[in-house]
Amino acid sequence: MAAIQSAEQEHPVPAFGWAARDQSGVLSPFNFSRRATGETDVKFKVLYCGICHSDLHMIKNEWGTSTYPLVPGHEIVGQVTEVGSQVTRFNPGDRVGVGCIVASCRSCDNCINDLENYCPKYTLTYSGLSSDGTITYGGYSDVMVCDEHFVLRIPDALPLHSAAPLLCAGITVYSPLRYYGLDRPGMKVGVVGLGGLGHVAVKFAKAMGAKVTVISTSPAKKEEAIRNLGADSFLISRDQDEMKAAMGSFDGIIDTVSADHPLVPLIGLLKTNGKLVLVGAPPKPLELPAFSLLMGRKMVGGSGIGGMKETQEMLDFAAKHGVAAEVEVVPVEYVNEAMERLERADVKYRFVIDVGNTLLNNA
Amino acid sequence: MAAIQSAEQEHPVPAFGWAARDQSGVLSPFNFSRRATGETDVKFKVLYCGICHSDLHMIKNEWGTSTYPLVPGHEIVGQVTEVGSQVTRFNPGDRVGVGCIVASCRSCDNCINDLENYCPKYTLTYSGLSSDGTITYGGYSDVMVCDEHFVLRIPDALPLHSAAPLLCAGITVYSPLRYYGLDRPGMKVGVVGLGGLGHVAVKFAKAMGAKVTVISTSPAKKEEAIRNLGADSFLISRDQDEMKAAMGSFDGIIDTVSADHPLVPLIGLLKTNGKLVLVGAPPKPLELPAFSLLMGRKMVGGSGIGGMKETQEMLDFAAKHGVAAEVEVVPVEYVNEAMERLERADVKYRFVIDVGNTLLNNA
Repeated sequence: MAAIQSAEQEHPVPAFGWAARDQSGVLSPFNFSRRATGETDVKFKVLYCGICHSDLHMIKNEWGTSTYPLVPGHEIVGQVTEVGSQVTRFNPGDRVGVGCIVASCRSCDNCINDLENYCPKYTLTYSGLSSDGTITYGGYSDVMVCDEHFVLRIPDALPLHSAAPLLCAGITVYSPLRYYGLDRPGMKVGVVGLGGLGHVAVKFAKAMGAKVTVISTSPAKKEEAIRNLGADSFLISRDQDEMKAAMGSFDGIIDTVSADHPLVPLIGLLKTNGKLVLVGAPPKPLELPAFSLLMGRKMVGGSGIGGMKETQEMLDFAAKHGVAAEVEVVPVEYVNEAMERLERADVKYRFVIDVGNTLLNNA
Repeated sequence: MAAIQSAEQEHPVPAFGWAARDQSGVLSPFNFSRRATGETDVKFKVLYCGICHSDLHMIKNEWGTSTYPLVPGHEIVGQVTEVGSQVTRFNPGDRVGVGCIVASCRSCDNCINDLENYCPKYTLTYSGLSSDGTITYGGYSDVMVCDEHFVLRIPDALPLHSAAPLLCAGITVYSPLRYYGLDRPGMKVGVVGLGGLGHVAVKFAKAMGAKVTVISTSPAKKEEAIRNLGADSFLISRDQDEMKAAMGSFDGIIDTVSADHPLVPLIGLLKTNGKLVLVGAPPKPLELPAFSLLMGRKMVGGSGIGGMKETQEMLDFAAKHGVAAEVEVVPVEYVNEAMERLERADVKYRFVIDVGNTLLNNA
């Protein structure tokens, strides 16, 4: 019980959430604590928290980096209750959010260039190591305390529950659309995989003016992709004739698939100078024949979430263009069942925990 | 003998060169013919022709695309002897060259954008199919006839023999340095492999103002790389300590290696937003763990030779900055031995055949 006692006593502010205690990944109620609101800190009541696929990997320690007890959640939105004396951008009552990181070194080249997400010393929102030596706890909990630099403003036009997934899934696809220049009107952009990331990628790319094609192994998703998400077309990646007809026609492809899959057919879909951008991380190395890139000066790039400035820009863009995640709001007691359903891809398209109304500390 | 008779009779202009007759790859004297100089054609006497590593693959049909008899050579320089009535850019006596392609469709997006090298219908300089249905023959021969659009001007400041390899090796490395933005002064650029391509990459990158590091498995090449080629530093890719110390420090790397090799250590050397550019084509697919690209928004790109406009720009840049290949000039009778030495990488750094002085048609 030493670790749990420590979690409850290491900071002055009582906090309550749901945590995984071991690799079984089963979540259960958990008392811990948060630091007092520092000079540059924002404290907020958590209202909603998205369930990201990486939460599933982390509660089971599938990446080998988990620390238990582990309170997941890095798609966190809520309402400010207190701000530190030096905080300039937020006031009590403000609608705010926190994404995947809560600290970075603030002095390296990446940090100076608004790319805190690539700072080698960033602190993850949960199961990360804070500068004071304590472990960070995520948003499946009632209260958050975070330096204002890592707090986002949620525009009034965005519903809080469908804004939550934008803080990870949203910025993960928005940032590469911008960086790799796939954000120009008329560009032909493919989105591989229609899950939490993919469905938001379709919406952002459409809002930027691109012609969007969903590339999927599942013909069953076609109607949904076109009617509900606004995709322009649908390409069945297992259909050789369809794939052949589409060869050399895409400016870029956002590949959200985190299972093993072949890259060559996707590279074949690209025009000269086309870009295949990976935002998922399949467990095994992918196979890349050099020749597929040489013929047509193509590239395979990666991208991981986004910096704080760009994340705010993404939220503002989403508000302006009516982009939000499609979510299934669930009570916190449903979280273990939600994880099971997520594992078999049985969700359209993101579970979001209604923390504000369902997380009750009965301790 | 049908094919050989046809080669000799299919066009009106007698031509003579050295050809491989089968997969043994052995080259021997060969009589064939060239077309008459058409309205937009330039005819020139071949003076030098570089021996590219791909010639070695092609004479042995290692890529499965060879047509015999096969006259190799796509690093061809010489002096104009005749021009067609519509030719505007060349006159008899001019110093000219022809690289890897002698025709393209001239109407696709690639052609319109000066990227004839990515035209799906381009015609290779040898073992390619001309629009008249005949097979193309390369520069291990006494005379060339080529549409002026695919003829380059060799600036006076460039010696012809050391300019020849620029037409393939030179543009292959120059183009990606430009396209991938590695041409800015002060950038830290790595060059993997110090052969025909790599040694010219070092020179071009230096001339563009980059800080150049040669990355090699062979410590023996260090002095040569720094003293003779002007590299700023040398990194031994098998030395774990050196590699670790250099992690995250390169803006980009030009990878000229065409043998199988691991990409992950090279990707690890890149900064955030760093680019690994493949210009060699290893036979097996390379292993690419997605995570290595996600962390730091890195990319792996490819590049294949260059368009005609950029190839001329490269030659002019080379003349201005004194960039040329390091060559070993050999007589045509030495070509089979040269191929054997090339196979065991025993050349610094490019063989060039002295066609003008040694190719004698004794038939």
